[in-house]
Amino acid sequence: MAHGGGGRMSQRLIESVFMPLFSNDLLDTRHDGAVFTIGNADLAFSTDSYVVRPLIFPGGNIGDLAVNGTVNDLAMCGAQPLYLSCGFILEEGLEIATLRTIAESMQAAASRAGVQLVTGDTKVVDHGKADGLYINTAGIGRVRHRVAADRIEPGDAIIVSGDLGAHGITILSTREGLEFDAPVESDTAPLWGPVAALLDAGIDIHCLRDLTRGGFSSALNELAQARNLAMEIDEGRIPVTETVRAACELLGLDPLYVANEGRFVAFLPASQTARALEILPHAAHAGTVLNETSAIVHLRSISGGNRILQMISGEQLPRIC
Amino acid sequence: MAHGGGGRMSQRLIESVFMPLFSNDLLDTRHDGAVFTIGNADLAFSTDSYVVRPLIFPGGNIGDLAVNGTVNDLAMCGAQPLYLSCGFILEEGLEIATLRTIAESMQAAASRAGVQLVTGDTKVVDHGKADGLYINTAGIGRVRHRVAADRIEPGDAIIVSGDLGAHGITILSTREGLEFDAPVESDTAPLWGPVAALLDAGIDIHCLRDLTRGGFSSALNELAQARNLAMEIDEGRIPVTETVRAACELLGLDPLYVANEGRFVAFLPASQTARALEILPHAAHAGTVLNETSAIVHLRSISGGNRILQMISGEQLPRIC
Repeated sequence: MAHGGGGRMSQRLIESVFMPLFSNDLLDTRHDGAVFTIGNADLAFSTDSYVVRPLIFPGGNIGDLAVNGTVNDLAMCGAQPLYLSCGFILEEGLEIATLRTIAESMQAAASRAGVQLVTGDTKVVDHGKADGLYINTAGIGRVRHRVAADRIEPGDAIIVSGDLGAHGITILSTREGLEFDAPVESDTAPLWGPVAALLDAGIDIHCLRDLTRGGFSSALNELAQARNLAMEIDEGRIPVTETVRAACELLGLDPLYVANEGRFVAFLPASQTARALEILPHAAHAGTVLNETSAIVHLRSISGGNRILQMISGEQLPRIC
Repeated sequence: MAHGGGGRMSQRLIESVFMPLFSNDLLDTRHDGAVFTIGNADLAFSTDSYVVRPLIFPGGNIGDLAVNGTVNDLAMCGAQPLYLSCGFILEEGLEIATLRTIAESMQAAASRAGVQLVTGDTKVVDHGKADGLYINTAGIGRVRHRVAADRIEPGDAIIVSGDLGAHGITILSTREGLEFDAPVESDTAPLWGPVAALLDAGIDIHCLRDLTRGGFSSALNELAQARNLAMEIDEGRIPVTETVRAACELLGLDPLYVANEGRFVAFLPASQTARALEILPHAAHAGTVLNETSAIVHLRSISGGNRILQMISGEQLPRIC
């Protein structure tokens, strides 16, 4: 049972059922959001459902996750997020106090991200059916800069926006009751701010992708496949905190595959790397796009060896968003 | 447990938790969709989650319901529906054949309604959760005509677009294993077609509302409250099939409170009534807006008496969409 984890089976499920049916030019880009024009406005449109367990975890809850997730899908389209919809599926018996806490977090996250929650819907299902609550958000943004896999070029710098793995490790450790020496908190955060800062500085971002389900390695593999260009990553340059690294070793996980909710990868001209790293002080120059027409992501590992960074297979961490 | 049924408790829940938090000019209109401008385009944006049981029923399934429902929310904003998002929450173990049937219905409904499904998301939850699947759709449309509760005027004709109650009775009878002399089928259908036909003919529609949760009487009560104008309805003019009427009597339900998924009420200048009824051959002139500043909906009943048509209280039929 690996549908929905962002790995190979999920892709297969989606491709086998949805893609042949729903095929159209916009959906076929397989981006996190669709981009189209109405009147004189280039718009981005995206949706995600949130089924994370537990509902509340260190650093966030399902509410701010649901706002930030869709805000970030729009930001990854080079779009300023503007308006969100919100659909609640509530389980009968959910404490109103819990709902209020989550709703308050949504409103705070929306304010922080500069978006308005403008339309919504609430359904109630039987006790035992919805793990407390599920939330769907959809969002509309206005495209400011064209970013797309087909704009990735050989020689592009691959920038990762901050340390990896905190969200997935937080969810898993909270769910399993694990404790580490140092506390770990979800990285959930809105990403339009840093993207806008790069654009304001004149950085010609070629492509963006948030590092959610399947983590850094899935994002790179999907883009390498979409563009049919190989990439080379230097594992030693990828920021991972000591706590997350230790937790991953304990749990047998690779931080490059663990989900993040406030991290992204940006592809940009190598000449603009230094300027980008000035603007994003927690970011790192993780690698480079090669002049090699294959979908392989090469990893120079910390131990000095070379290996291929595979797409995640199956489910590493279920229900992390 | 009456949250989500469209009655008083649902309104109270929404008002007590969401409204104080999420208050903003767009949400405060309490319409089924938000209307705003980006660039030179007036847009409508709406969302609904679908949790109907059973998943497949006479006349439709959760898939076409999820497309038509959001298409109709946009149409009720006077907007041509253009793009839909779709979020699936799948229960582990759901038959792929069932998913395919539902996805095919979604695609057929989208084609019929002239919209594109452009972005989506799939999550999988544990066996025993989500009743097979839940679907959220959100939609974007382009506003063609300004319709709003504040445009309702004394003297306006109240037009109901077709016979009432078939959807709710279909769901309930399928769920309970009831059979009637004549088959009954859901009325699920896209409503932009008839709305566009009225606009094409130059009808100055003042307000539109689909007759979903809470049915005809809830829609009228909400609008009477929003505009603070009384209305008078002639029960004898409201189309209800013999089968639905008999089923309602058997079940102790009032067809004016039963949910529909392909019916709407339109408010328009009395002088355009005849033209509107020519364009919509199944529609009926059900009543009139009074020159009386109160939120009361008067009903002249079939038996000749007069009573007040109340807002539905609590849950009449749960999980009908």
